[in-house]
Amino acid sequence: MIYPTYEQKHVPLTDPAAVREVFREGYENGRAACEYGTAASYIPELAKADAAAFGLYAWKKDGEVIDLGDTTTRFSIQSISKVINLAVALKFIGFRETFSHVLMEPTGDAFNSILKLDLVENRPFNPMINAGAIQVMSLLEPEFSFEELLEFARAICLDDGIELNESVYRSEAETGDRNRAIAWLLKSKEVMKGDPDRITDLYFKMCSLNVSAKSLAGLGLVLACEGTNPFTGKHLIAPGYVRTIKSVMFTCGLYDESGEFGVKVGLPAKSGVGGGIVCAVKGPMGIGTYGPALDAKGNSIGGITALEHIAHRLRLHVFDYT
Amino acid sequence: MIYPTYEQKHVPLTDPAAVREVFREGYENGRAACEYGTAASYIPELAKADAAAFGLYAWKKDGEVIDLGDTTTRFSIQSISKVINLAVALKFIGFRETFSHVLMEPTGDAFNSILKLDLVENRPFNPMINAGAIQVMSLLEPEFSFEELLEFARAICLDDGIELNESVYRSEAETGDRNRAIAWLLKSKEVMKGDPDRITDLYFKMCSLNVSAKSLAGLGLVLACEGTNPFTGKHLIAPGYVRTIKSVMFTCGLYDESGEFGVKVGLPAKSGVGGGIVCAVKGPMGIGTYGPALDAKGNSIGGITALEHIAHRLRLHVFDYT
Amino acid sequence: MIYPTYEQKHVPLTDPAAVREVFREGYENGRAACEYGTAASYIPELAKADAAAFGLYAWKKDGEVIDLGDTTTRFSIQSISKVINLAVALKFIGFRETFSHVLMEPTGDAFNSILKLDLVENRPFNPMINAGAIQVMSLLEPEFSFEELLEFARAICLDDGIELNESVYRSEAETGDRNRAIAWLLKSKEVMKGDPDRITDLYFKMCSLNVSAKSLAGLGLVLACEGTNPFTGKHLIAPGYVRTIKSVMFTCGLYDESGEFGVKVGLPAKSGVGGGIVCAVKGPMGIGTYGPALDAKGNSIGGITALEHIAHRLRLHVFDYT
Amino acid sequence: MIYPTYEQKHVPLTDPAAVREVFREGYENGRAACEYGTAASYIPELAKADAAAFGLYAWKKDGEVIDLGDTTTRFSIQSISKVINLAVALKFIGFRETFSHVLMEPTGDAFNSILKLDLVENRPFNPMINAGAIQVMSLLEPEFSFEELLEFARAICLDDGIELNESVYRSEAETGDRNRAIAWLLKSKEVMKGDPDRITDLYFKMCSLNVSAKSLAGLGLVLACEGTNPFTGKHLIAPGYVRTIKSVMFTCGLYDESGEFGVKVGLPAKSGVGGGIVCAVKGPMGIGTYGPALDAKGNSIGGITALEHIAHRLRLHVFDYT
Repeated sequence: MIYPTYEQKHVPLTDPAAVREVFREGYENGRAACEYGTAASYIPELAKADAAAFGLYAWKKDGEVIDLGDTTTRFSIQSISKVINLAVALKFIGFRETFSHVLMEPTGDAFNSILKLDLVENRPFNPMINAGAIQVMSLLEPEFSFEELLEFARAICLDDGIELNESVYRSEAETGDRNRAIAWLLKSKEVMKGDPDRITDLYFKMCSLNVSAKSLAGLGLVLACEGTNPFTGKHLIAPGYVRTIKSVMFTCGLYDESGEFGVKVGLPAKSGVGGGIVCAVKGPMGIGTYGPALDAKGNSIGGITALEHIAHRLRLHVFDYT
Repeated sequence: MIYPTYEQKHVPLTDPAAVREVFREGYENGRAACEYGTAASYIPELAKADAAAFGLYAWKKDGEVIDLGDTTTRFSIQSISKVINLAVALKFIGFRETFSHVLMEPTGDAFNSILKLDLVENRPFNPMINAGAIQVMSLLEPEFSFEELLEFARAICLDDGIELNESVYRSEAETGDRNRAIAWLLKSKEVMKGDPDRITDLYFKMCSLNVSAKSLAGLGLVLACEGTNPFTGKHLIAPGYVRTIKSVMFTCGLYDESGEFGVKVGLPAKSGVGGGIVCAVKGPMGIGTYGPALDAKGNSIGGITALEHIAHRLRLHVFDYT
Repeated sequence: MIYPTYEQKHVPLTDPAAVREVFREGYENGRAACEYGTAASYIPELAKADAAAFGLYAWKKDGEVIDLGDTTTRFSIQSISKVINLAVALKFIGFRETFSHVLMEPTGDAFNSILKLDLVENRPFNPMINAGAIQVMSLLEPEFSFEELLEFARAICLDDGIELNESVYRSEAETGDRNRAIAWLLKSKEVMKGDPDRITDLYFKMCSLNVSAKSLAGLGLVLACEGTNPFTGKHLIAPGYVRTIKSVMFTCGLYDESGEFGVKVGLPAKSGVGGGIVCAVKGPMGIGTYGPALDAKGNSIGGITALEHIAHRLRLHVFDYT
Repeated sequence: MIYPTYEQKHVPLTDPAAVREVFREGYENGRAACEYGTAASYIPELAKADAAAFGLYAWKKDGEVIDLGDTTTRFSIQSISKVINLAVALKFIGFRETFSHVLMEPTGDAFNSILKLDLVENRPFNPMINAGAIQVMSLLEPEFSFEELLEFARAICLDDGIELNESVYRSEAETGDRNRAIAWLLKSKEVMKGDPDRITDLYFKMCSLNVSAKSLAGLGLVLACEGTNPFTGKHLIAPGYVRTIKSVMFTCGLYDESGEFGVKVGLPAKSGVGGGIVCAVKGPMGIGTYGPALDAKGNSIGGITALEHIAHRLRLHVFDYT
């Protein structure tokens, strides 16, 4: 971690060559950090990932890209799908209705914790933990087919090549018993309606979308552009919803490391145990990283390392305003 | 709450008269909302507050002020002192050392919870909950007298009139048994050094500083100015530390309502059960509010209502960037 | 509660008429106490019970019976089936194997708590809470059909008339989502093997057995006779297993009221939310009570009241030895 | 553990030579088992104990004793003092008043847990965990001096030689911060009155009484004799209170191993981390063991091993009745 007592000279965003150099440094730092992490092992398919792989893709509104390393490898989106599911819920079901079923508070607990659910409050604490994401999915399942959600995912990630990774999906379905337990718990508390088997099945499918660092940069770019595809001008989701999503990403996006990421990097982001991180940056710009070597909290160690360097040198931290 | 589907026309910061009008609307909304809250009752001195009182003070770098309602009444700073204590720790003890004793993660638990402390991790989760603030105070107590901390509080709040409120201090000391329990628990886990009685005594004193909405606006302004007194140019605390403080305020500043405040208002802020809220805004500008009518989570209901209106109309939410 | 400072003259078991009078007093006390309780409401079928009903049946080895009040009404056995399931597990799977899958510690938690399961230890704490009983059922389900378990239940309760209560079973199955959540949680922790749907289905069936106060007295009598049917001489389960079952009943048999029951009554017993209590007494004698008016902990208030009186006057408390 | 499927031939209590032989076997088993445990390390004084030491003392009403191994070494009574404190509370303050301040439920939690205290119920769950014992001590502290409590301890243990172990007391006082935290927590919840410093000081003193295996056998004998000194005929505490104490010992006496001890040994007992176990047996007989090698739950491994053998062979388990 870069200790904030030492204030390096910042690189202005108006100097493209210098910006590219900062990204390259970030990429190198991230790639080097991968050796300190390990690929997720809790589902067999994830353990097969190359823990040394690292890619970084930045995509600006004007179409300019910075493409470093392993940015075309497809990997499963995992928890980053929670952002897409929340976007669909907000767009089609609305803010008020969505947040009557799930709170928007960070928990400090592990992503698959059920502690607060049973001790504090029947509604899940936020849509970025498993319980909250399953709850959101229960709102979507009666309304949307998987194909419709996939279509929305492709649009918001600016990537028509996103498909279901069948082997990850099977692996998720086979090992997803804790998520089934969470779904039945929500059902038993009558905060969730519907069929837990169908809801978790759709949840597993959305976790199994095959994305790349580039897809995540696309998602970050649309969020940075307040919900509009900057190349077609198409409005995918209203700016107010995007603001909400980014706020929730900031406080809850990196599991129980969200607070530290907020201090160190200071950008709305969401990680997945498949190794991805999506980040929405002013500019506007989206950044996607891929590095399946994870730290102890389940976040891509290469991604965090790279983003910290870049945010610091380019002064992108949201609390660097004056 | 203003549901973000309906996007009102924003008022530009460059139109001073319109900005003033937005503040006045915010003030009126906040004042009206006070009837839905109640003054804190857990220490007798706080219960004496006038639950209908409301004041809003905004202070810009150029010296311009917006002064509405009850902005000169002195009330106890309570949890907002946690921001000042953290600032002292970062300035004199440093980032690395401070955060080796306390984490920077939001908890979703009540401000005086000891659950995570005993179940998850010996170190308190963040400096904005009681356990974390007492831990921070244990780092300061051997190094600083109360008079020195008071002097720093006066400087960073731009208010030489801050004094110890003796009756609140006595009330805190008499009823602070849970904080003593927390201190002994930290001591028993060997994460805290020093004498729990002296540490909690200093903690109670800092909670009992008499501030006004104006003092809090001063504190917010210094934080908005990256740690510099904009009128004297004196550097009170380094910009990197201020960024850290604002990040922690954003994720942890309003108790277990921080996530919702982050979505609704989107500004770094800290509340106290005395009725105050401090807020650091780009501009740069500081905002202080006073309204002892609290909501169920212990936050000033008038303050939140006013800040939400102002942030929305002036497009101050940190994730409103493009 | 009878406060134990005042030591009444005890009635010797060798005076049958006096013993009968004590039982009658106990019955009257129990019946009168029913007005302070309410029938279980968490499944609709249970709520239909007559909260004023009360019956008490005592059955001695020599065939003598004391039959008071409503002892023939059939009601669902509910949690008392946990005793039968544990007996089957011990008899056919053995002590060592059974207790490698479930502990034998009281919890102080509610019967359907999952707290310890997630915080402390993957194996359920004891076979008398839902998690432990479902775990025990997962050991039985591959080996036994419902008909076989029913046959064992009839034998150990000395009651060939026990049948499945179809409407209670349907009600259980419809509202048993929390038990399903527990089963999936156990499965996810890999402490439970097998199919959660089939396991919980068999568990629901066993909870829905139709028993009477007389059936429970039969069960208590067999336990008091160290596992032998005193009328046929048939060995149903080994004495060492019976000792184990009675120990677990003593520490865990009345939910989170077990400790208080142990002090007040001092006999191995098991309650069910259907209103039954089974009790094994020296003599040997079995006692069954039926009273669907429950106290706040889910135990039959009439049953506890009657048993306390009887245990006290007849000096049956296991710690009344000298 | 002796698996209860294999039923050995029991030794009748009427054959003194055979009984002595069973005790000798139990002693040898216990001594041999010590190598699997370790002395308590959480206070420095306890760590100095000889982990290989083992003693067993049985004392019958008629004065007959069985004295094996290290039965005269003095060691600190630790948690076994909770039994004495409870006896004093019941005798002088009464059942109703005592149990209005503390429950009588086993917890399944560690002896120094505060979890239930903060989550479930303000009153401690039972007088055998630290929180409950401190609460009981708060009832005694205004009424009794240490000297008076010591005098009662000497009387109920049939041992005038009991003294305060000054070095253990100092060690307790120096390292007892968690107990102080518990006391302040109870105070903050207003379930405890009085001065936490004085209450914990008296609690530490009572934990530091120097006893021997023989003293504990004396305590067990008095409890087995329903509260009367069998040699002088002096009534120390009423039989109803003794029954209560033995019930609480059965369900809560061996920390979170109480349930297993109830199954395996089936006798009311209380352990201390100093290595002692007291046990009250029909006969009447008291048994005291000393073996500072502890198992993972903090109970003397030699003591449990010896008691299990003896209870099994002599058929002392309270649920071995017919």
